[in-house]
Amino acid sequence: MDLTVDADRLRADIEANAEFGAVDAAEGRGRTVLVGMEANRRAREYLVDRMDAAGLDVTVDAVGNVAGRWTPDGADPDAAPVAAGSHVDSVPEGGIFDGPLGVYAALEAVRAMQDADVTPDRPVVVVSFTEEEGQRFADGLLGSSVAVGERTVEEALALTDDDGVTLAAALEGIGFAGSGRLDASAWDAFYELHIEQDTTLEAAGVPVGVVTTITGITHLDVTIRGEANHAGATHMHERTDALAAAAELVLDVERAANDVVDTSSDSAVGTVGSLDVSPNATNVVPGRVDAGVDIRDVAYESMETVVDAVGDTLARIEADRGVETEFSRPFDLHPTPMAERLREAAHRAGETAGLTTMDLHSGAAHDTMHVANVTDASLLFAPSRDGISHNPREWTDWEDCAAATRVLAGAIAETAGAQ
Amino acid sequence: MDLTVDADRLRADIEANAEFGAVDAAEGRGRTVLVGMEANRRAREYLVDRMDAAGLDVTVDAVGNVAGRWTPDGADPDAAPVAAGSHVDSVPEGGIFDGPLGVYAALEAVRAMQDADVTPDRPVVVVSFTEEEGQRFADGLLGSSVAVGERTVEEALALTDDDGVTLAAALEGIGFAGSGRLDASAWDAFYELHIEQDTTLEAAGVPVGVVTTITGITHLDVTIRGEANHAGATHMHERTDALAAAAELVLDVERAANDVVDTSSDSAVGTVGSLDVSPNATNVVPGRVDAGVDIRDVAYESMETVVDAVGDTLARIEADRGVETEFSRPFDLHPTPMAERLREAAHRAGETAGLTTMDLHSGAAHDTMHVANVTDASLLFAPSRDGISHNPREWTDWEDCAAATRVLAGAIAETAGAQ
Repeated sequence: MDLTVDADRLRADIEANAEFGAVDAAEGRGRTVLVGMEANRRAREYLVDRMDAAGLDVTVDAVGNVAGRWTPDGADPDAAPVAAGSHVDSVPEGGIFDGPLGVYAALEAVRAMQDADVTPDRPVVVVSFTEEEGQRFADGLLGSSVAVGERTVEEALALTDDDGVTLAAALEGIGFAGSGRLDASAWDAFYELHIEQDTTLEAAGVPVGVVTTITGITHLDVTIRGEANHAGATHMHERTDALAAAAELVLDVERAANDVVDTSSDSAVGTVGSLDVSPNATNVVPGRVDAGVDIRDVAYESMETVVDAVGDTLARIEADRGVETEFSRPFDLHPTPMAERLREAAHRAGETAGLTTMDLHSGAAHDTMHVANVTDASLLFAPSRDGISHNPREWTDWEDCAAATRVLAGAIAETAGAQ
Repeated sequence: MDLTVDADRLRADIEANAEFGAVDAAEGRGRTVLVGMEANRRAREYLVDRMDAAGLDVTVDAVGNVAGRWTPDGADPDAAPVAAGSHVDSVPEGGIFDGPLGVYAALEAVRAMQDADVTPDRPVVVVSFTEEEGQRFADGLLGSSVAVGERTVEEALALTDDDGVTLAAALEGIGFAGSGRLDASAWDAFYELHIEQDTTLEAAGVPVGVVTTITGITHLDVTIRGEANHAGATHMHERTDALAAAAELVLDVERAANDVVDTSSDSAVGTVGSLDVSPNATNVVPGRVDAGVDIRDVAYESMETVVDAVGDTLARIEADRGVETEFSRPFDLHPTPMAERLREAAHRAGETAGLTTMDLHSGAAHDTMHVANVTDASLLFAPSRDGISHNPREWTDWEDCAAATRVLAGAIAETAGAQ
């Protein structure tokens, strides 16, 4: 099915949302919208207003997930709905599309059906999940983890930020502590539209991507303990330098991921994204380093190859440098394939609209990963200029936003049985 | 000359001083005494009390340097005095001997002369310099830089900490904003006793070291700019990872210093002591790294070799990895030889007391480096257990403290012309 979307209306919503938590950036347009902050309250209130304006029945669950349900005359109110959405929170100084595009595109899809007088058999639910980015509470994908029953409401509400503030208190503070639990297993299907955050679509000149698999993700927390000592008075042969040891780890993770890319799986990535040095003074030999390692691929096997390389490196630097090491694996998700019937519906919607679509994988985690565990789920991508995201320079042309939204709307309409 | 020092009195002073800013440590005994903090006020007030009790004439200069002058009957009050001392500030969670040993040993030397009824020809001045560690204001050796005229009082007082508080305000806050300027060029000689912070004395089983040369010190501030990007969505071949580039720098600095040690100068050291990663999140490819490099040797030439290696590495990672780099050299001190006549006086004092002394170099900077630019200066070392310093596990046996103080007292007495 092909639906005409209102590109200006979509843009107006995304730009209005971009004002909440807007930051000064040397280049581009950034925002900081952490869960429970004032900017988050305003972004949520604006969304509720826009859902109200479109005649949706809005509910907020106990962990702050917002859902707007459209049950047009003629639809079966008891049929399992088709849901679509994303999130409105951001990383600190993130971009304006990551999250909001998927929420407002889903809303625009509903408005496009309304404008075209299209009546689906199933209700359609527009969703905004709480704390997708994991910047303040937990590791990310928080709201969807509750919606699929992976985490209980109570567990989620008891999570604390660095200052000991609970999620419960943070949500109460902005008036978004609702009740009940949004239940994703009750959905017939879920679509998420997101920016690609990579250059596959841009390089191919294709406006819409259909994700085949979301890579698995492993996070490793590594601690390397050496001995802090005076940088001037400690002979080179007498040191146990935790940072020099950590430097080997950083280069080995890079090398191991590159080896996998070159030999078996092109999509593998390995990153040491965080490194905290202690005591971190120019004139002191570093005594301790804590490093955060991120490993992903569409094949769990190749993720394991990089994890094994980390283990080998730690054993080697213990033997060669006398450091003590340990690591934990606080986050480990297997690769998630997307539902074939929804992928096909998206390709068909592109074809009907005369828009090229292409298959690709996602290296980024999204709420739809969780949803895929309880019902059919899908992920569509719009192009990201230079692949940049989590940065004020993140950009997707408005034309591409509209094109991807049109494909989303067509796919939702078909899946919901619209005539 | 051999003087009997009161080991218990010395220990009591060092232990009393250790209470100010005392921190809980899993092992050992630590303190945090930053300039202008409450612990610093208490440490200074205790010192002034102890100087008063010994009949010294105490002055505090405009930058908070404390000097207690002893002009016994029979000494020429107009003769250039012999000065001795160190500092009472510490690094965060530093040890209890680094600094205080030299201050209280100098005071004990005066008391030992008083007890023995020894009358020097010259006055003796006990000194505690402000902000030797450079933890809150400037790069270290601050008080002595003013005392030798390298920095003006006005420049020093205008220095600010990370919160924008000036040194002037910090000193006023603890009642130690004095007047005038302690003038080291008016001294006939200066002795500093300090813990070695290395294992040379411990390994040799010698209680007192006489420093021949203090190594030069260069600090480099290096910035490496890559591109922050999503750790999952950015293909390995598309990254400009600032941390991976910085890891090469860390290992190259270590390698270059080791090469110098193995081929030309055993005393050379090179350290990347600090590394700040931005944005420093596990799931983001690092976009920027700021690194602090510390390079030292008794030969300036070999320091240059390591600096050149840093330049080579930065050029290589720019070419190979596409990062942008820059570096500055905010701190650059040439090696400083100690005055031969004072070194000889120290060896003679050891001989007279029946205590073994040995020549060695200092890889750590000390206030005496500055003083050496305007008058004869000397540096004596007491052993450090396992070479550990800047750490609660820093330790010097009380017996060794007393032995080194006895040599210091003898050398001061001889240099001051005591009969």
